[in-house]
Amino acid sequence: MAYQGGYPGQQYGGYGQQQPGGYPGQYGGYAPPPQQAAVSPEIQNIFRNVDKDNSGKINSLELQAALINGRGDHFSDTACNMMIGMFDRDRSGTIDIYEFEKLYNYINQWLQIFKTYDRDASGHIEEAELSQALTQMGFRFSPQFIQFLIVKNDPVHRKDISVDQFIVTCVQIQRFTEAFRARDTEQKGVITIGFEDFLNVALTTTS
Amino acid sequence: MAYQGGYPGQQYGGYGQQQPGGYPGQYGGYAPPPQQAAVSPEIQNIFRNVDKDNSGKINSLELQAALINGRGDHFSDTACNMMIGMFDRDRSGTIDIYEFEKLYNYINQWLQIFKTYDRDASGHIEEAELSQALTQMGFRFSPQFIQFLIVKNDPVHRKDISVDQFIVTCVQIQRFTEAFRARDTEQKGVITIGFEDFLNVALTTTS
Repeated sequence: MAYQGGYPGQQYGGYGQQQPGGYPGQYGGYAPPPQQAAVSPEIQNIFRNVDKDNSGKINSLELQAALINGRGDHFSDTACNMMIGMFDRDRSGTIDIYEFEKLYNYINQWLQIFKTYDRDASGHIEEAELSQALTQMGFRFSPQFIQFLIVKNDPVHRKDISVDQFIVTCVQIQRFTEAFRARDTEQKGVITIGFEDFLNVALTTTS
Repeated sequence: MAYQGGYPGQQYGGYGQQQPGGYPGQYGGYAPPPQQAAVSPEIQNIFRNVDKDNSGKINSLELQAALINGRGDHFSDTACNMMIGMFDRDRSGTIDIYEFEKLYNYINQWLQIFKTYDRDASGHIEEAELSQALTQMGFRFSPQFIQFLIVKNDPVHRKDISVDQFIVTCVQIQRFTEAFRARDTEQKGVITIGFEDFLNVALTTTS
C-alpha cells in the first residue's frame, strides 16, 4: 500500500480533543464523580431492562443482548467488552447504574456522530463517509487505508461498516494514536520500536 | 514495563515452523487441493450438525454455536471470524465441507497443543503454562508481557485464558511476528515505522 508520509503535526492530536460536534472524550468514565447524583427515571428504566438477571450490575453479555446495529445484528463481543471495560472502574467485568448512565451517554454521543456521517441514512457508513469522518476527526489517511478499514470490517461485501464497528474502529485508532504519539517524541510521524513493545501496543490498542 | 531486548535471531522465526509437537501451520487452508478427496463420514456428520440452516455452507455464527470452551462459553466472535477467514478461500464469509474438514483438523491440532500445556487439565492455561507454551514456540517474552496477555484475556480474575483465547493470542502473535520480520530486514529486533503502516499492521494482525 502507499503512504502519504504520516500525519501532519497539527492534525495529529486532533482526535480526542474537544472539537465542534463534540466527539466523546475517551475514558470519560474513569473520573470518580465528586458525589453520586440521582439517576434519571429514564435511565433507571433502561437499566432494569438491560439487567436481565436483576443483579444490579450489567455485564458484557447483557449489554450485547440490548444493543442492535443497523444490520439487525447484536453489537460484537469486541464492542461490548470494550465499552464495559471503559466504564468498569473496579474491573469487576460489570458496571453499576452510575457507570451505566455514563456509558449510555457515551453510546448516544457515538450514535449522533454516526448519524452525522451516515449522510444517506443507510444505517451504515460507506467508504466516502468513513473517509470524511476520519478527516474531520483530524486524521489524514490514504485512500488505501480507508479501503482497508472497510474490508477489515466487511470482508464479504467490502462496502460499509456498522455502527458498532465504527465505534470500535474509531476508539482503536484513537488509542493507537496516543500510544504512537507517546513514542514519537519529535513528532516526526515515524518511530523506532522493538518487537515486544510493538506487539504490546498492537494488542493493547485493539483489545 | 521492562523489555528483554527483543527476540534472538535464532528463536525469532521458530514459531510457525515445523517443530516437535507440530504446531498448526498458518494458512494451511489456502493451498488449493490438487484434487478434492472424499470427506470422511465422520466429518460429513459433524458438518451437517453444524450447518444449522442446511445451506451446505458454514458461517461464523454456525461455527460459534458449535464451539464451547472450558469455561462453558461459546468461542468468541473474534475466534470464529478469524478461523472462518483462514479457510474461506473465496471470501464468501462461509466455508464448504472441504474447507470445514481443514478447519476441523486445524482446531483439533490447537486443542492438542492446548492440552499439552494445560498440565493441570483445568481446561484453562495459567500464566506459567502460557509462558512455557510461548517459550517452546520460540518466543522470549518478559514476565510482564506474559502477565499482560493474561490480564488482557481475563481482565476480571487476571488468572488464566480459555482455549479460544489461546488460539487467537497465538495466531495474532504469529501474524505479528511475520509483519515485524518483514520490516526488520537486518534482524535487529527493532524497526522504524510510520504512523499509518504501524496502525495497518496492528489492525491487520489482530483482526
